[in-house]
Amino acid sequence: MGGSTASEEVASMAEELGALIAQRGWVLLNGGRNRGVMAASARGAKRAGGAVIGILPDRDTGQASPDLDVAVVTGMGDGRNLINVLSSDVVIACPGALGTMCEVVLALNCGKRVILLGWEGWPQLEPYRRRGALVLAGSPSQAVDHVSTALAEHKASG
Amino acid sequence: MGGSTASEEVASMAEELGALIAQRGWVLLNGGRNRGVMAASARGAKRAGGAVIGILPDRDTGQASPDLDVAVVTGMGDGRNLINVLSSDVVIACPGALGTMCEVVLALNCGKRVILLGWEGWPQLEPYRRRGALVLAGSPSQAVDHVSTALAEHKASG
Amino acid sequence: MGGSTASEEVASMAEELGALIAQRGWVLLNGGRNRGVMAASARGAKRAGGAVIGILPDRDTGQASPDLDVAVVTGMGDGRNLINVLSSDVVIACPGALGTMCEVVLALNCGKRVILLGWEGWPQLEPYRRRGALVLAGSPSQAVDHVSTALAEHKASG
Amino acid sequence: MGGSTASEEVASMAEELGALIAQRGWVLLNGGRNRGVMAASARGAKRAGGAVIGILPDRDTGQASPDLDVAVVTGMGDGRNLINVLSSDVVIACPGALGTMCEVVLALNCGKRVILLGWEGWPQLEPYRRRGALVLAGSPSQAVDHVSTALAEHKASG
Repeated sequence: MGGSTASEEVASMAEELGALIAQRGWVLLNGGRNRGVMAASARGAKRAGGAVIGILPDRDTGQASPDLDVAVVTGMGDGRNLINVLSSDVVIACPGALGTMCEVVLALNCGKRVILLGWEGWPQLEPYRRRGALVLAGSPSQAVDHVSTALAEHKASG
Repeated sequence: MGGSTASEEVASMAEELGALIAQRGWVLLNGGRNRGVMAASARGAKRAGGAVIGILPDRDTGQASPDLDVAVVTGMGDGRNLINVLSSDVVIACPGALGTMCEVVLALNCGKRVILLGWEGWPQLEPYRRRGALVLAGSPSQAVDHVSTALAEHKASG
Repeated sequence: MGGSTASEEVASMAEELGALIAQRGWVLLNGGRNRGVMAASARGAKRAGGAVIGILPDRDTGQASPDLDVAVVTGMGDGRNLINVLSSDVVIACPGALGTMCEVVLALNCGKRVILLGWEGWPQLEPYRRRGALVLAGSPSQAVDHVSTALAEHKASG
Repeated sequence: MGGSTASEEVASMAEELGALIAQRGWVLLNGGRNRGVMAASARGAKRAGGAVIGILPDRDTGQASPDLDVAVVTGMGDGRNLINVLSSDVVIACPGALGTMCEVVLALNCGKRVILLGWEGWPQLEPYRRRGALVLAGSPSQAVDHVSTALAEHKASG
């Protein structure tokens, strides 16, 4: 997850993250549009040979990223954010604005592990960080390491 | 908006808030269930002779508050939170957990004025407070005064 | 329910239906937009002093009928049709196109009583007509009589 | 699309259909649950080496088919049917009950080509059959031939 507009720095981080997700053999799921963190992470995953699912807010694929393997067309606007979160095993949030903040909160509310990549701490969510539901990562490679840990714990407990 | 569980203190504040909303002649719209802030505010509004609309997450009215005039049955779970926000002219958030935090963020993201009643500040949202999109209220009567201001400004600008 | 475009004859039938619903003291719930069967039935109900709830497909109230007491703003496009159906005690379908046909089928699928007003029979749904889930009405006053019956049966069985 | 319960005959037809879809190199998208036409078509596609996306009505994957490559978790109940339809290039409807009928009508309403596999005609939709929006198929291989034609026409016109 992440902003629909992204600085060059954030976009390049998202692209690297997409590539690392693909190299681990995971499916990348994001908001599917052709801009911001969504487009950059999809491009990175695709170039690294991975699979990408985009959950679009629109009623058609006119604004879809060209790097999607499957476009899920919801016609629900931001209502699709809950679907993104429910469909993810682990949520990685790149810097974004209110939409991304909302996905972080939704994800914690659904009991998903959340990894904040390139965000400063967020005092209101400190209790979630303390109990391990929320993790801070300083780089894409740190973020995917946290995903591995989360999936391993999930498997062990499930 | 507010928690689906509420302390006695918060519930009594929500009930007073509902009554004040009704006395101003406004329609109270909330999440519609028979517990927490939803139930308390509906009860307050109803006793004061007001109208209450509940937007239920469920597929039926089995868990609806008895004080609703109209129950909108969405069958969408927490996906209904976006509908609550989009349908409101102004959003008042009583203390709650992640679900309420998410509604606050959603509301700001949709450009709605948000009034936090009985919450401490929330550093991440400080820029929104500074530009007046988010307002803190210390009591139900302060909250409805803020609503009046917001509606007057809205009318003037619209 | 009914078409978003309506002939003069259908619109006048919908307006009369709205008035009769209001006179019985029921709340009229429809799709909320300012055209077709929605607008006509809302106008009829409003003029007769009734309450009208519109469940809008849009993200704002720009296309809302002026006769709504409450506009529920879903931002979900046609996804809101299921909400219309789930929120209704009884569904009356005026003539419409595919969208209305879909609401009829959705309503039967949710176990709601459906009254077809001004439609010819529909062979595929004959089994539902035979067991009383679907009823044909030749006029608005016949339709509201069927609603009374349905509500009485519902109350008796509930 | 198709019923969540299916006779042995229909299930075997759905399984063959899934296999043929996979052999053409298309992605199979269905409702994702572990029963009826959904489960059978997913099994067929998977065994033939294809990719399967399931759009689940539930809040988790507890009732998901074991043959999905990606489970999209909507938490929206039957509200997810519109997403199924919007996300499909062509809709094939195996025999089902009201839920499937509704998806057929939704699909026509969204301008999608619909192929009815193993259904008798449906008089109300005859106008759509006449103009080619709705096609009847007598066997899975006929159905995928119709899909090929639809995709070729789509490409030519798009």
